[in-house]
Amino acid sequence: MKLEKILGNELSPWMTGGGLEGDIVLSSRIRLARNLDKIPFPNRADNNQLSEVLSCARGAVENLNNGSFQYYFEELDNLQALDRYLLVEKHIVSPMHVQTPQGRGLIIRSDGSVSIMVNEEDHLRIQALTRGLDLEGALELANYTDDRLEESQSFAFEESLGYLTACPTNLGTGLRASVMLHLPALVYTKQLNRLIMAATQLGLAVRGLYGEGSESTGNIFQISNQLTLGYNEQEIVENLNSMVLQVVEQERAAREFLIKGSKEVVEDTVWRAYGMLRYARSISAQEALATLSQVRLGIDVGMIKEIPAEVFNELIVLTRPSYIRKFYGVSDMEPAARDRMRATVIRNKLQGGTE
Amino acid sequence: MKLEKILGNELSPWMTGGGLEGDIVLSSRIRLARNLDKIPFPNRADNNQLSEVLSCARGAVENLNNGSFQYYFEELDNLQALDRYLLVEKHIVSPMHVQTPQGRGLIIRSDGSVSIMVNEEDHLRIQALTRGLDLEGALELANYTDDRLEESQSFAFEESLGYLTACPTNLGTGLRASVMLHLPALVYTKQLNRLIMAATQLGLAVRGLYGEGSESTGNIFQISNQLTLGYNEQEIVENLNSMVLQVVEQERAAREFLIKGSKEVVEDTVWRAYGMLRYARSISAQEALATLSQVRLGIDVGMIKEIPAEVFNELIVLTRPSYIRKFYGVSDMEPAARDRMRATVIRNKLQGGTE
Repeated sequence: MKLEKILGNELSPWMTGGGLEGDIVLSSRIRLARNLDKIPFPNRADNNQLSEVLSCARGAVENLNNGSFQYYFEELDNLQALDRYLLVEKHIVSPMHVQTPQGRGLIIRSDGSVSIMVNEEDHLRIQALTRGLDLEGALELANYTDDRLEESQSFAFEESLGYLTACPTNLGTGLRASVMLHLPALVYTKQLNRLIMAATQLGLAVRGLYGEGSESTGNIFQISNQLTLGYNEQEIVENLNSMVLQVVEQERAAREFLIKGSKEVVEDTVWRAYGMLRYARSISAQEALATLSQVRLGIDVGMIKEIPAEVFNELIVLTRPSYIRKFYGVSDMEPAARDRMRATVIRNKLQGGTE
Repeated sequence: MKLEKILGNELSPWMTGGGLEGDIVLSSRIRLARNLDKIPFPNRADNNQLSEVLSCARGAVENLNNGSFQYYFEELDNLQALDRYLLVEKHIVSPMHVQTPQGRGLIIRSDGSVSIMVNEEDHLRIQALTRGLDLEGALELANYTDDRLEESQSFAFEESLGYLTACPTNLGTGLRASVMLHLPALVYTKQLNRLIMAATQLGLAVRGLYGEGSESTGNIFQISNQLTLGYNEQEIVENLNSMVLQVVEQERAAREFLIKGSKEVVEDTVWRAYGMLRYARSISAQEALATLSQVRLGIDVGMIKEIPAEVFNELIVLTRPSYIRKFYGVSDMEPAARDRMRATVIRNKLQGGTE
C-alpha cells in the first residue's frame, strides 16, 4: 500500500519550518469544499451513494498525477485505527473524518502537502498545506487539484450561489483559508482575547491547534475566514493575509515588550523549559507542547542559540500521541510508556542522542 | 583580621562530602556546654560580667594553638552583619548567637572544624564538626579543645550534677551529639514521622537543616541526643551512633523500595531537577535545596553519573543567601538579583562554566 509509505514519512514539508514570517507563522492552508452533482451530501447519502462517491474519487486519481508528484487513494476502512489518528495529527484529515471510517476515503499527494477528504461533511474536501505564510502558494496547489478533478467530475454548482455545500456556511467559493500561528507573547501579555474579538468582527475565526473546539496548548492558533459567500477566492485570501500580517506585527511588538519589561523572567522561563525537555524522562503531550512553545520563543528572541528553530516545528508533530505509537511501537494501552517514549524522542532531538 | 580569611574560605572540610556512610550522613557534630566558675550565666550576667567572659576566651586562645592549626578569637560586635550570617550558614554559630551580637564572641580553628561560641546560652559552647558519620572523631576534637581550655579556666562543676549549664536540659556532660542526614527516600515514602516518633522515645530529637524549629527543606535532618545527664559522653555518642546506623539502613531500604516500585517516576524527578538546576536563570534558596536533594538522590542511586556527589554537599552551602552575598557581592536588598546569582553559581558548578 502506497499510503503506508506516506504515513511512514515522519515529517511533511510544511512541518520543517522556515518560509515567510516563519518565526511566527508555522503553516498556511487552503481548503475547498466540493460536492458531486446529483448525489446527496454525505449526511443524506445511503451506503450505495457513499460508495459511488468513493468510486469517483478512486477514478479521479489518475488525472491528478503529474511529473513531480503521485496521488494515492485509500478507503479509511482499509486503514488501521492508528494510521487514521496519525493522519489527523499530520493535519491531513479532520478529527471528524476518522470518527466513523465506513464509507469515507482519502486522496493524498506523495509529499503530504495536498489531500482530499472523501465523504467528510462534503463529498470532496481539497486541502493544500504550505510552510510559513504562503496562502497564495496553498491556493495555487488547491486550485490545480480542483481543476484536475473538475476535468473528470461534475460538481454541484448554482449560478447565484456558487459551489453547493452540505453546510450553508461553506456556500459560494467553498473556500476556507487558514494560517497556523505561534503567539506566545500575545498569550503572556494577555492580548489574545482582544485579538480574537477583533478578528471575529472582521469575519475571521481563531481556534486552537487541531481546529474547532480544540485546545490552544502550545500557544498555537489557527486564524481562518468565516465567510465564503460574497467574496471571490482572491479577496478571501488577501483579507486573511493582511490580518495575519497585523497579528504577526502585534506578536513581534509583544515579544519586544516582554524582553524589555521582563527579560529575566522570560530568560528563566525559556531556559527552565529547555532544561526540562533536555532531561525529563516522562513528558505528557500537553506539557511537551507548552514547554516546546517556550523554548521556541527563546530561540526566536535570540536567548537560546544552541538549537535550530525547526526542531520546534518538528517536535510539535513528533510528540503527538499517535506519532509516538506509530514510530516507536508504544501501544495506546500504555500511556506511561508513551510519555516516557515522548521524553526520549525529545531528548534525542535536543541532545543529538548523546546522553 | 584573621577571621576574615576563614570566612573567605568558601568551604569547610566537612562540607566537601565523603566520610563514613557519606551517601546519607553529611556531617557529625559534638557540642560541649561549659560555664566559667563564679560568673553568672549569660542571661543573668551584666555587661561587665559578659566582658569578663570575653576576656577569658581571648586569653585562652594561645593555649589552644598547636602545630597544625591556629585558633582565632573575635567579638561578634566587630564583625559585619553579613559575616555573622555567614557564620550561621557555615554552621559555626547558632542563629541565636548572632541575633544580639553585643557582648558575644567566637573562637574558631583555622579550618573551621572547631569553634567556640562565647556568651551564647552558656559562657562557652565548644563545637566540633567532622564529615560523614564520625561522632568519635568530633568528640575527640571537642575533648581536646575542652581539655586545653580547662588548663587555663575553671569551669562550673558539681560533683552530683556534673557541668552546670544555663538550661537544665544540658546539665551533666553538657554534651550534645548530632548528625546531619540526607533522607529523601524516607520522606518520599512517608516513613519519616514514624522515625521521628521512634527517635523521640529513645531520647533523641529530629530537626531541620538549621536546628531547632528550622525548616527541613532539602530532606536534610539533624538527629541529636536530648539527654545529657545520667549517661557518660561515650554512652551518649554510642547511643546516637547506633540509632543513626539504623536510620541509614532504613533510608537505604527506602531507596531500594523506591527504585523497585517507582523507578521511572524517580528517574524523571531527579533528571528534571538536574535539568532545572543546569538551565534555570533564577532559583530561590528553598527551590535550590529541594532540587539539589533530588539530584543528590539521583547520584546516590546511580541514575545520575555525570557529576560527583560532593557537588551536592558544596552547593547546599554555596547557595545560602549570605554566601551569595559574601562571595558574589549581591546586596540583601535585591532578592531577585540574589536568586539570579544563585542560579549562576549552580549552573557554573554543574556545567563547569561552559554554557
